[in-house]
Amino acid sequence: MLTYSFENRGKEALYTWLYKCMKDDILSGKLKSGEQLPSKRSFARQLGVSTLTVENAYALLQTEGYVSSLPKKGYYVADIQPAFHRLQTGEVSSPASAVLIREQPEERQYFADFSSNQTRKENFPFSVWTKLIRRVMAEQGDHLLKNPPGGGILPLREAIAGQLREFRDMQVSPEQIIVGAGTEYLYGLLIQLLGFDSVYAVENPGYQKIWKIYQAYGVTCRYIDLDHSGMRPELLENSDANVIHISPSHHFPTGITMPVSRRHELLGWAAKAEERYIIEDDYDSEFRLSGKPIPTLQSIDRDGRVIYVNTFTKSLASTIRISYMVLPVPLLERYREQLGFYSCTVSNFEQYTLAAFIRDGHYEKHINRMRNSFRRKRNLLLDAIRESPLASLVTISEEDAGLHFLMHVSTKLSDEEITERAAENGIRLTGLSRYFHGGEEQTRSAHTFVINYSNIEESRIEEAVERLYQACR
Amino acid sequence: MLTYSFENRGKEALYTWLYKCMKDDILSGKLKSGEQLPSKRSFARQLGVSTLTVENAYALLQTEGYVSSLPKKGYYVADIQPAFHRLQTGEVSSPASAVLIREQPEERQYFADFSSNQTRKENFPFSVWTKLIRRVMAEQGDHLLKNPPGGGILPLREAIAGQLREFRDMQVSPEQIIVGAGTEYLYGLLIQLLGFDSVYAVENPGYQKIWKIYQAYGVTCRYIDLDHSGMRPELLENSDANVIHISPSHHFPTGITMPVSRRHELLGWAAKAEERYIIEDDYDSEFRLSGKPIPTLQSIDRDGRVIYVNTFTKSLASTIRISYMVLPVPLLERYREQLGFYSCTVSNFEQYTLAAFIRDGHYEKHINRMRNSFRRKRNLLLDAIRESPLASLVTISEEDAGLHFLMHVSTKLSDEEITERAAENGIRLTGLSRYFHGGEEQTRSAHTFVINYSNIEESRIEEAVERLYQACR
Repeated sequence: MLTYSFENRGKEALYTWLYKCMKDDILSGKLKSGEQLPSKRSFARQLGVSTLTVENAYALLQTEGYVSSLPKKGYYVADIQPAFHRLQTGEVSSPASAVLIREQPEERQYFADFSSNQTRKENFPFSVWTKLIRRVMAEQGDHLLKNPPGGGILPLREAIAGQLREFRDMQVSPEQIIVGAGTEYLYGLLIQLLGFDSVYAVENPGYQKIWKIYQAYGVTCRYIDLDHSGMRPELLENSDANVIHISPSHHFPTGITMPVSRRHELLGWAAKAEERYIIEDDYDSEFRLSGKPIPTLQSIDRDGRVIYVNTFTKSLASTIRISYMVLPVPLLERYREQLGFYSCTVSNFEQYTLAAFIRDGHYEKHINRMRNSFRRKRNLLLDAIRESPLASLVTISEEDAGLHFLMHVSTKLSDEEITERAAENGIRLTGLSRYFHGGEEQTRSAHTFVINYSNIEESRIEEAVERLYQACR
Repeated sequence: MLTYSFENRGKEALYTWLYKCMKDDILSGKLKSGEQLPSKRSFARQLGVSTLTVENAYALLQTEGYVSSLPKKGYYVADIQPAFHRLQTGEVSSPASAVLIREQPEERQYFADFSSNQTRKENFPFSVWTKLIRRVMAEQGDHLLKNPPGGGILPLREAIAGQLREFRDMQVSPEQIIVGAGTEYLYGLLIQLLGFDSVYAVENPGYQKIWKIYQAYGVTCRYIDLDHSGMRPELLENSDANVIHISPSHHFPTGITMPVSRRHELLGWAAKAEERYIIEDDYDSEFRLSGKPIPTLQSIDRDGRVIYVNTFTKSLASTIRISYMVLPVPLLERYREQLGFYSCTVSNFEQYTLAAFIRDGHYEKHINRMRNSFRRKRNLLLDAIRESPLASLVTISEEDAGLHFLMHVSTKLSDEEITERAAENGIRLTGLSRYFHGGEEQTRSAHTFVINYSNIEESRIEEAVERLYQACR
């Protein structure tokens, strides 16, 4: 039986390793011309890899002429003489070419997806946005083609500064605002600005994408546990971190809103030494559904240590990539010296459209409409749970800040069992344990699920709750 | 006379250092309440810093209440008692707030700018682009709000793959194409992919922005000299570089097109060891004005070592941020594992618009029109030089690949003198020496200027040449 070991593949991808092993065997004659290869599925099972891996390896071998396929028959070792000849004379297309490399398989369809926060079509202001784009384009102005400052066009930054002043009580100058194509991009800029030697403290549990970005940049991360007020200061003090990355308005996934006292504690930590900074991620503060808003760290920072980050990807559409950060004055000059050469990553056309959208008052109306829609959706969902037998099994918490809440289930089932049973009922659920760093944390958060309701269709809420009940009971 | 030393400021920005020094002196009483401060301009001259630095320091001091200003009188040390009190009780706004931090002063206006490559208004296809955006928006489709794969929407990647097949003879699968908001962003992704321990060989002379990106990421760069065929292989062999970053179709700024033999040499270098890669930057290959196109390195690479990078920022507009790279198959799986979590940085709306623009044949027409326009502009400029007394002073080279050429001037004037004299005549020029790493190289390229003609108005060409002559004679 044909088999290969993947032990010594090193950094090689699974399928290129498999491709190379098989090519060697074909060239050495160990695999003979005309010999039939195992089916992709059975070969994958036997090797303990995915079918995609085998498929891609076969595709590479086929492109290079080592293997040929017969419809409905399968794959055969080719007569390698001509293929080898072609390789030598350069007639063959390169191994990198014309190979079908499949991306992730089709996503499963759900009746209700409590883990998605994609904007729903009815929540995007298509007609106003289209009208504004047309207006921007109709001007055909020189300004549309003029390279903007690295931080973005001034009218947009002025509009954002106005928003921050009015709704977040933040006094910032437009020049402190840096516009970029998504917060992921801005986090990358911040690592370049604050240094690859900095040690970054992130929230545990937390938004895993942030961890992945720090990993991709090869910088050191410390995973700091939370208490009911957010990141624990004593753990922070005992770490070697000099930059903390937090979402105090509405922590994801726990939903915690950091109280003012903890905010001052963290600011105190930052002020205690040079080069300490706080990245304040305010990603969905627009959607606080009740209770009074708490001042941002940025607005109570008197030492220039807070970098405020926010995004339009939540409040407008996740597929329009516009986010921004507010640099404290002491970092601004360093930014200009070291990173001022970067071009702004957002198209001028969309920057001018968004600037008009905010300036003409559409953004505020849009946010109010969205907030009402989310509040109604949350209330419908909470009511439906209250009226269902599910109510006796679950406890809801952290439901006041926007877009998601936590549901704790009294059950003997494991999180995996509940997630799997929910999926069988067409419901996508994510356990809170998924957001902890390191496996040993999982028991602590067991039986708690993150319920993101922004993407749920109202008409499906009742049915979705019934299905949830079926999964949890 | 009030003065401060900037010697011990360390990492501090000039103006925050100045602000702190002055604040200390105010608090200690060395600067007394009511004392007039020197004017911004004279203080700046005396300290040897820019007026902006003093202005920003004064603004900070004023915001915090240490200094007050009287219209037409100047700045005075405030009575600090109340200000200090406000600081203690937290009534004052933070130092980071409400400060006017000016960005770069207004750019100087030129009669003709031979260093700009901003798209001219008449070269952007406003009406077609607007029509297509409207069509895309009118669909109001779910797909517009659906998060695309990290590499971009498939229709755009298919359209790009089609272009590459037809015009660059490259056989690539759409899945190998990664769309991103500008090549600067993609270079950053590549550093994350190829590793912070990799050593990057760049062209000297070369495009300085690329060097700055590698510096911002803190990776090691080797500056490899060129001969008439491009990067010198023997210097490369003797370096410890494992990734080379080149623009073989049309090197900036020398205009060199790398011959096929050198391309094979570099591919041979890459094949000699694991983890060697070539980043092929094909940034303006669409605009080759005469002579047959040379195959890309990507299309003759049989070992999967070439990463091809190209952009629409040159061919469409520098303010629409859409670029892409083609990953070789062996890197694709690594990309997905390590960086697959990143969201695409380009807005769906513009991706769909560009996909339609290419698919419907507009892009090809646009490129042909642009190529003709650039060719005509180049010819007009070369003719004007030929017919001017300037002809006896200059030699032109590398004029066949698009958008810029080199002009060597026989002169006893220094490059700085010529640039300055040109500027006085309203002409912006950049010396080739500017693109060398390290000062000692400057003599080697003296008296050669990079003439970027894409942004020149046709009606100004004759006059611009006359002014150039005045600067060079």
